[in-house]
Amino acid sequence: MMQEIGKKAKAAERILSTASTSTKNRALYMIADALVANAEQILSANMKDVRRARLNGMKETLVDRLILNRARIEAMAKGAADVAAADDPIGKVTSGSVRPNGLKIEKVAVPLGVIAVIYEARPNVTLDAAVLCLKSGNAAILRGGKEAITSNMAIANVMRKAIEKAGLPADCIQLVEDTTHEGANELMRLNKYVDVIIPRGGAGLIKACVENSTVPVIETGTGNCHVYVDKMADIDMATKIVVNAKASRPSVCNACESLLIHEDIAREAVPAICSALRASRVLIHADEKIHAMFPDSTLADESDWGTEYLDYIISAKVVSSVDEAIDHITKYGTGHSECIVTNDYFTANKFTKSVDAAAVYVNASTRFTDGGEFGFGAEIGISTQKLHARGPLGLSNLTSEKYIVTGEGQIR
Amino acid sequence: MMQEIGKKAKAAERILSTASTSTKNRALYMIADALVANAEQILSANMKDVRRARLNGMKETLVDRLILNRARIEAMAKGAADVAAADDPIGKVTSGSVRPNGLKIEKVAVPLGVIAVIYEARPNVTLDAAVLCLKSGNAAILRGGKEAITSNMAIANVMRKAIEKAGLPADCIQLVEDTTHEGANELMRLNKYVDVIIPRGGAGLIKACVENSTVPVIETGTGNCHVYVDKMADIDMATKIVVNAKASRPSVCNACESLLIHEDIAREAVPAICSALRASRVLIHADEKIHAMFPDSTLADESDWGTEYLDYIISAKVVSSVDEAIDHITKYGTGHSECIVTNDYFTANKFTKSVDAAAVYVNASTRFTDGGEFGFGAEIGISTQKLHARGPLGLSNLTSEKYIVTGEGQIR
Repeated sequence: MMQEIGKKAKAAERILSTASTSTKNRALYMIADALVANAEQILSANMKDVRRARLNGMKETLVDRLILNRARIEAMAKGAADVAAADDPIGKVTSGSVRPNGLKIEKVAVPLGVIAVIYEARPNVTLDAAVLCLKSGNAAILRGGKEAITSNMAIANVMRKAIEKAGLPADCIQLVEDTTHEGANELMRLNKYVDVIIPRGGAGLIKACVENSTVPVIETGTGNCHVYVDKMADIDMATKIVVNAKASRPSVCNACESLLIHEDIAREAVPAICSALRASRVLIHADEKIHAMFPDSTLADESDWGTEYLDYIISAKVVSSVDEAIDHITKYGTGHSECIVTNDYFTANKFTKSVDAAAVYVNASTRFTDGGEFGFGAEIGISTQKLHARGPLGLSNLTSEKYIVTGEGQIR
Repeated sequence: MMQEIGKKAKAAERILSTASTSTKNRALYMIADALVANAEQILSANMKDVRRARLNGMKETLVDRLILNRARIEAMAKGAADVAAADDPIGKVTSGSVRPNGLKIEKVAVPLGVIAVIYEARPNVTLDAAVLCLKSGNAAILRGGKEAITSNMAIANVMRKAIEKAGLPADCIQLVEDTTHEGANELMRLNKYVDVIIPRGGAGLIKACVENSTVPVIETGTGNCHVYVDKMADIDMATKIVVNAKASRPSVCNACESLLIHEDIAREAVPAICSALRASRVLIHADEKIHAMFPDSTLADESDWGTEYLDYIISAKVVSSVDEAIDHITKYGTGHSECIVTNDYFTANKFTKSVDAAAVYVNASTRFTDGGEFGFGAEIGISTQKLHARGPLGLSNLTSEKYIVTGEGQIR
């Protein structure tokens, strides 16, 4: 079964990989229109998922991720149209030269091939992932969570019909209806047909992909992000950045999870920052020093430093130097987004040079790590691995390259 | 034990990753000098490996890969000096912009981190891999084959002493002395410390890495490369290209393994090309049509089309169109280097567009797929995977990237 899906994806990919930009864009606009035209059908499928989820006792915060409504479908349609309007990354010549022997060597962006996206209970990922793959010439195999399967099937059906009408094979987008773990594991080992696996979801899903997959994986999305308030920080700026980084949207991977404060500024900074956090409903898991200075906190234990709360909770610790802050981040960080607040030039330089993460910030909120904010358009996730691409994965990161070498009979 | 190696590599990497170009170059020149100064010691270690290999009945063609002599050591020293002279890829700003909110975003090349190179019986790889990793700021864990262990230990010792003298931690380069399969498997699962695994060797080694590794792998080096002689080919040019691609060095991955000839030109091209191949000692495993036209060949069976001979053997087949050639290459190729010989503009375009490989050639030998020939300098291998980098892996491919985002208090 999974073999069959892989084979179909590869066959569709051979056509899609050389499709013109205008054909791909036509398909994307037709997807956008079809989503709106078939909204009722998608919503009634979604209702079934939601009802089943509530019967199974799913928490309402999770049900919220599962629910679709007309506004969300319109947002999905707008997403498809936005991707149509974005630049096509395929065919771009990224470098080129003529060698001394006259050989002309061009490096050209080509699709990765077949991308399998494994995700959880958010049906909008079905659309987001599919349209980004389509635009970048990649066939998509979508494997969402069982909670959203009825919604996902409805969305995939609408997309498949639309792209077929646009003259592309329906199998450019396939949804895996088998939502078992065995099915996912089989997909992760489909090296013959699948070029890349992109997991979108929590740490457990990503770990499962890294451990079980023989297909190359792009890790995304775990963010144990820190804000370090240096002794030379502007406390008012630090407060605004910490509160924004933590409380503007705690459930996302670029939210701050841990606060480090230099001991020389702690007496003034701790009450200012911590009370602003409390005013934004954030609980503080503090080390002993911060707990002593700000009693409206609970004492942290060792496990706090490595925890991605994704909630209105932050861990907080006093450090004696920027070096201690860097060491702490090296030990506990996940390589996502790390921030220093400082007015000191050399300290800022040391931090940006020594902290190894996808994005390192000086005097700005970690919440900016995002494809849209970086100016890349829609993203398929934030890569926290070092291979292939790091940070927000836009369309241009869903490509590989090919050298085209043209000669007139050269031999070596 | 392997954990300990990983931990030491990570600690060394923290220093190496921010070392200046001049420090790294000093270490490289000191390695070059030390290799020559300690040549006797390395050669006597090598003699032990060679003696043991012959006692164990190793084939002389393989013994040849294992043997070092003064000239080979001088070539290794020159290799280290050449890498010192090459551009440092680290710190390069590859893109940058100022966002509407005033945030400045720069994308900077950084080291991958800790690279484990797993290879077979060529002791020169110990040097080649180490110096490329060092220059690109990556700590190297080298795991060569047991056949070369004494030579590898001698070379690694010389290198470690040299880089320590240059002011860098000796653990920037570590050789794994445990050459068991269990040791290699443990290395492949050292995700906490190792960022990338690069296998350098035959198809079996690469398969083992892909199947067992949880650390990301860059696949290198399997090349079932084709030359397709189109009906509009210049037969004289085609003959020269095929003979060069096959016989100039049959044991390397960019050598041609399979010849496809259009039926409309076969009557003239087959005798010309096949007799030139025979004159270069190449055996021809031919399909029935070619065998009928050129009896000094043996009949191929299905297994021939997928075989990388790495020897004076070529498979040969008649096809009825460029589309059949492309389909055959899609089915049997390994995505390394593929060539068309043609005078026809549209056929050439179709071939370069539809063939999915690291390098696609028009009217030139596949043997040019090489870091030096492409102008990239020394290479650590030819990537045949689509993730991260494809084709010759030079210094700039041994890097990741980091976004450095500087602001003045921006929040989202």
